[in-house]
Amino acid sequence: MTDTVAELVEATANKKLSTMNYKENLKNIKTFIFDYDGVISDGRIWVIDGERDQVRSSSVKDGYAMHYAIRKGYRIAIISGGKGDPMRIRLNNLGIKNSDIFQGVGNKMDVFEKYCSDHQIDPQTVLYMGDDIPDYTVMQNVGIATCPADAVPEIKEVAHYISHQKGGYGCVRDVIEQVMKVHGDWMSEDAVIWKAP
Amino acid sequence: MTDTVAELVEATANKKLSTMNYKENLKNIKTFIFDYDGVISDGRIWVIDGERDQVRSSSVKDGYAMHYAIRKGYRIAIISGGKGDPMRIRLNNLGIKNSDIFQGVGNKMDVFEKYCSDHQIDPQTVLYMGDDIPDYTVMQNVGIATCPADAVPEIKEVAHYISHQKGGYGCVRDVIEQVMKVHGDWMSEDAVIWKAP
Amino acid sequence: MTDTVAELVEATANKKLSTMNYKENLKNIKTFIFDYDGVISDGRIWVIDGERDQVRSSSVKDGYAMHYAIRKGYRIAIISGGKGDPMRIRLNNLGIKNSDIFQGVGNKMDVFEKYCSDHQIDPQTVLYMGDDIPDYTVMQNVGIATCPADAVPEIKEVAHYISHQKGGYGCVRDVIEQVMKVHGDWMSEDAVIWKAP
Amino acid sequence: MTDTVAELVEATANKKLSTMNYKENLKNIKTFIFDYDGVISDGRIWVIDGERDQVRSSSVKDGYAMHYAIRKGYRIAIISGGKGDPMRIRLNNLGIKNSDIFQGVGNKMDVFEKYCSDHQIDPQTVLYMGDDIPDYTVMQNVGIATCPADAVPEIKEVAHYISHQKGGYGCVRDVIEQVMKVHGDWMSEDAVIWKAP
Repeated sequence: MTDTVAELVEATANKKLSTMNYKENLKNIKTFIFDYDGVISDGRIWVIDGERDQVRSSSVKDGYAMHYAIRKGYRIAIISGGKGDPMRIRLNNLGIKNSDIFQGVGNKMDVFEKYCSDHQIDPQTVLYMGDDIPDYTVMQNVGIATCPADAVPEIKEVAHYISHQKGGYGCVRDVIEQVMKVHGDWMSEDAVIWKAP
Repeated sequence: MTDTVAELVEATANKKLSTMNYKENLKNIKTFIFDYDGVISDGRIWVIDGERDQVRSSSVKDGYAMHYAIRKGYRIAIISGGKGDPMRIRLNNLGIKNSDIFQGVGNKMDVFEKYCSDHQIDPQTVLYMGDDIPDYTVMQNVGIATCPADAVPEIKEVAHYISHQKGGYGCVRDVIEQVMKVHGDWMSEDAVIWKAP
Repeated sequence: MTDTVAELVEATANKKLSTMNYKENLKNIKTFIFDYDGVISDGRIWVIDGERDQVRSSSVKDGYAMHYAIRKGYRIAIISGGKGDPMRIRLNNLGIKNSDIFQGVGNKMDVFEKYCSDHQIDPQTVLYMGDDIPDYTVMQNVGIATCPADAVPEIKEVAHYISHQKGGYGCVRDVIEQVMKVHGDWMSEDAVIWKAP
Repeated sequence: MTDTVAELVEATANKKLSTMNYKENLKNIKTFIFDYDGVISDGRIWVIDGERDQVRSSSVKDGYAMHYAIRKGYRIAIISGGKGDPMRIRLNNLGIKNSDIFQGVGNKMDVFEKYCSDHQIDPQTVLYMGDDIPDYTVMQNVGIATCPADAVPEIKEVAHYISHQKGGYGCVRDVIEQVMKVHGDWMSEDAVIWKAP
């Protein structure tokens, strides 16, 4: 680790949110931004042949939470280094629009800053979840930085909250549920209805 | 959670079946109704490309139990928020007819009530298994409400029985086996024969 | 369970091989017969679309052992209730001929008896591995009856040996390795060479 | 096990690297050579139909480490008994050239020796990772021989280092990370950037 990055890590650790602040900050969250591989997916990739994009799997329970959050007015965006139609189709099925999906991203911080600027989003109102080193810089610039239980050590180091659920197995629902409960939006009258987009 | 739903949960907890009643009630069961995702499947979805439906995996041991129950005269129906030909094909292979398969369902309670009415089924003779919030209302209106070991907390709360097996990994066989044993139908002479539909 | 089957189970338990006999009997084994689903596969089925057969996954380490046993002169056959080209292709890749593969079998005992008769195989020289109720009768009529760690209770009851490995995750290699070690065939000079059929 | 192989195993155990030497030797490593099945993949194979190659899954976190190591000037090669376009495509996506990929290999030692000779690579500067018996001889002829947590016993016996991670689930990243940290190459300024090849 270079000095510069090491210093950043230390600085971040010092200003890490206390548990009390974490719960307080949940009230400010209006936007969720997720990495895809290892967060929405379980971090595995299947290749079938040269004509098709890489195949990933994701959780139906996480899907319910994303779909329900959107119906309740939350904003969800995806910033992914990976790419492919299957990823986009899965997200579209949950109600996430193509204009909120960024694939094949080389520098996530650039995309994050432009997205916030384009949509006039205060980064302090964003909950981000990432699991690997390309998420490192964005994690340090959002209101609440979170990661799955099986994120790499470098990311756990800069997370305000580490979910007890693994990537692709409920970590996304975990954080959505926490935010929606604070706002009184979870399990309301229409929760049992599934409205396909 | 809204007051109304919270009250429902409390009321249900109060009238929860005692263990003794649960075993007694197994004798009344003639119909099984299952959710698909997270119950028959393990709750994961693979997307391959835009031309194909979502892909799911399921258990051969659960499949044996469903197939055998049908041969022995039990009724099995599926009410699923998800949809796709692969799901239907898997169920057909086990002997479940299309008229007993409901896919892409927005409001499961509506479908459940119509199905019972169409086939003159007393809801008290139905064992239902669901794993997520869209199953919530139906769970409260059947003879025996069950769920897999990895159902969400809201569903476990209203289940009469929580299987020790996870979704897609034996929970379906667990409840079929219990009902068939009570009726003396499990492991009879023809149990070793597999009759493909 | 009917009386007849219950009596069979009890009788089998009484004549169960002692540990000493089990090791002694390994020396007599010349033929392996495996169920596919839950033994060579992990008991899961993926359906992709209506034009393709069901998809299963299997272990490369189990594959090495099957391939190596065949090269060393052992006979391997498959008796499966399931069917499909993918299953057959996987087995062919390991060196198992179509004439030793039986798919879509309704009554496994019938196929087993005809196979032994056609090839003049003494059932006492056969090691069989199955995991579910359709394997029940064959398990009671071979020299060594084995099953994976996650076989159903009815099958564990009649197994001479229960592997510590699960179906699709090393149980096949476990029993092949034991037999080949007793014969001094495991890890010989050519073991590091892979000869694709 | 034949006498010859048994003697080899014993000899290797005697000259096994001490922990101190292992850490010292990490400094000399410039080339990584990996087996594919059970190392980069999790050792499972899916067969879809007769027109397509076998399908495998691999880890995105391992993929990040391989891609980053190549960008930093390390050499990565693959020697695999298995084969198929999907395997090659996955590796190409990570920046590994076809000239460094050897598929369908019968005798890995032959390929290893020719590769080292063609590229003037000192075997003592190679870290190899394998998981099964076909890797046995190469494991005994490299600077550092490593294996995943779920390698077969014969391979663990001759490994200088056994990763705590399983095949396809982080074992590749584990060893790349150790070597790059010793060289001060891990987590440098450009680590957060993903440059698709």
